[in-house]
Amino acid sequence: MKKENVDVGAMLEDFGKDIVAQVEKGKNPSFNTTSRTRSNVHYDEKGGFLKLGNAKEERSFINVAQTKRFMQTMAVAGKCHKFVKENLHTTIRGLFYQLKYSLGEDVDENIFNEQSESNPLIEDLEVALGIRREELHLNANRKGVLIGNMKVRDYFGKEEQEIDVSKLGRSGWGIPSDVDNDIEFVDVKAKYALVVEKDALWQRLNEDGFWKKENAILISPQGQAARGTRRIIRKLADTGMPIYVFNDCDAWGWYIYWTIKTGSINLAYIGGDIATPEARFIGVTMSDLDRYDFLNNMTMKTNEVDIKRAQEMLEYPWINRHEEWVSELKRVIKTKKKLEQDTLEGPRLTFVDDYVREKIKNKEFLP
Amino acid sequence: MKKENVDVGAMLEDFGKDIVAQVEKGKNPSFNTTSRTRSNVHYDEKGGFLKLGNAKEERSFINVAQTKRFMQTMAVAGKCHKFVKENLHTTIRGLFYQLKYSLGEDVDENIFNEQSESNPLIEDLEVALGIRREELHLNANRKGVLIGNMKVRDYFGKEEQEIDVSKLGRSGWGIPSDVDNDIEFVDVKAKYALVVEKDALWQRLNEDGFWKKENAILISPQGQAARGTRRIIRKLADTGMPIYVFNDCDAWGWYIYWTIKTGSINLAYIGGDIATPEARFIGVTMSDLDRYDFLNNMTMKTNEVDIKRAQEMLEYPWINRHEEWVSELKRVIKTKKKLEQDTLEGPRLTFVDDYVREKIKNKEFLP
Repeated sequence: MKKENVDVGAMLEDFGKDIVAQVEKGKNPSFNTTSRTRSNVHYDEKGGFLKLGNAKEERSFINVAQTKRFMQTMAVAGKCHKFVKENLHTTIRGLFYQLKYSLGEDVDENIFNEQSESNPLIEDLEVALGIRREELHLNANRKGVLIGNMKVRDYFGKEEQEIDVSKLGRSGWGIPSDVDNDIEFVDVKAKYALVVEKDALWQRLNEDGFWKKENAILISPQGQAARGTRRIIRKLADTGMPIYVFNDCDAWGWYIYWTIKTGSINLAYIGGDIATPEARFIGVTMSDLDRYDFLNNMTMKTNEVDIKRAQEMLEYPWINRHEEWVSELKRVIKTKKKLEQDTLEGPRLTFVDDYVREKIKNKEFLP
Repeated sequence: MKKENVDVGAMLEDFGKDIVAQVEKGKNPSFNTTSRTRSNVHYDEKGGFLKLGNAKEERSFINVAQTKRFMQTMAVAGKCHKFVKENLHTTIRGLFYQLKYSLGEDVDENIFNEQSESNPLIEDLEVALGIRREELHLNANRKGVLIGNMKVRDYFGKEEQEIDVSKLGRSGWGIPSDVDNDIEFVDVKAKYALVVEKDALWQRLNEDGFWKKENAILISPQGQAARGTRRIIRKLADTGMPIYVFNDCDAWGWYIYWTIKTGSINLAYIGGDIATPEARFIGVTMSDLDRYDFLNNMTMKTNEVDIKRAQEMLEYPWINRHEEWVSELKRVIKTKKKLEQDTLEGPRLTFVDDYVREKIKNKEFLP
């Protein structure tokens, strides 16, 4: 049975009807959205993630600074309504070219010259309607891979397909942009999910059958986590399974972790949907240097970005409340050393399996 | 039945035994490789791809400039032999850390300080032995996705899995680093393969079921093609099916096409294995502007890189022999305009399907 999605088509129709009704009443048509400026991004203490505050912004037509933008937003909403009704998907780039095509013909100038003009309007719509762009049939870039004991029912195009994610060999399942609409996860039987920053390490663990032996879901965001990957981590956490993250000990590795855990400033407007505050960081860490002597021969020198990031992180109240993180970051700043997760392949290729297993068994992770 | 691979373990043993035999005879141990300098990279007229010439280089131990490098190469060969015997895979980064681990302990200094030192040694070995690094169990970065009427038999880790590539929904099959060893393609029934530069356009065509209607294999390198993706395109061409490439009309799109077709200077040492001279370029092209009027509203201004690349390409004899390419490139330089493949989503999202179908039907492609 196909999963019932939010009726975004109807939402967009209501949105349009409301604007028309305002015009018919002789009013200046407007709609409300929530401010996405930095000053309206807050850390939600209770929830444990970054989200927007209550500051509202009105977008109205009869306003010199907003007229063009208002008109553009209506055009974006109209196009998305069409995509939803056709049940076809595109990207914000595809949307941009549709707008250029059909709104650039009979007016003196194109109403959209640059894609950078249409991107914030899409966010306006997401916030005003309380939905994610994937529901507007606008795919974001996809990246990330998953393997484990679960099945995916993918109602894609005109067909339904059941994919057994445990039977995908060396490749794994490519995490799509949209993991909510017309897609279902069934028979999710794993004990925990392990998120591994680098695809190379994911492949290492996959070759060893780590996820089978451990009954784990093995994910790699393949670098910074895309929206789809963050969302699927959130959904797996919702099933009650623990989420462990295994990254480099450097600016980029920490950033990827904290983005998964608390969300990011740019995506604070959908914070609760993509943040996983339950996530725990199992390594690699500076304190691994005390435990595994060989790692002391494998550190690298930090660069400016690493130090700057570590200093910034020490300023964030949601990070500096954790003494384990303060200690880690201070040690990086003091020693000017960092460490890659690949170092664990040093003693033997399968050492990385033992490292992860031990850490989880002994509950040795950072909050 | 598991596919029989080249016995790389035995090749590495013979390589080592030969070195030992030279030492025992009191000789200066050495081996030969082919020069990979720019001056030894040639375009093979008959084959239609970039390959190395005949210039040989000797690597020997008793040679002040080469001693360290020679020793390092033996260490690399030793590690790769171990990986092959263990039947485990890693990356050049994992290899680097293994070398640091086991050769950095009992000598005064690490014999490898930077990974950049070990990379050319791996290429030396590939060339000296006439194999690809994937056969040394060193995976390169993987990127690229494929869907279509074919099956993959993946003898991975300790298991055999058969993956029906036509049943992978919105995700498709992730093209691995190594598409030769312990992997087989069966029931490849498609009429042609279509390579689409951007994943977004691949998703568009996949959603429309384009590959089903056309009985095509649909591939996206997701930007520049990784080794695995280039290799699989070569293997599909070997089955006799035509290969069509559908890219942007800009510096990057042309570069991706020519890399697939003739190989690249950096990988000339495995040129014949990864080049697909049979490939044809179906678009987007500057001449599309004459045929599809709406595209004239969707061009972008070229930047310096586009113009520089177009000028360089006009210098390459394997490109400037084709008048269609000369005309395309000159038009870009003259008009300072370029065009993205996403523009074809302008009139309607499914327009791109018709565009590709028409081009193939009418054999309108560039050589």
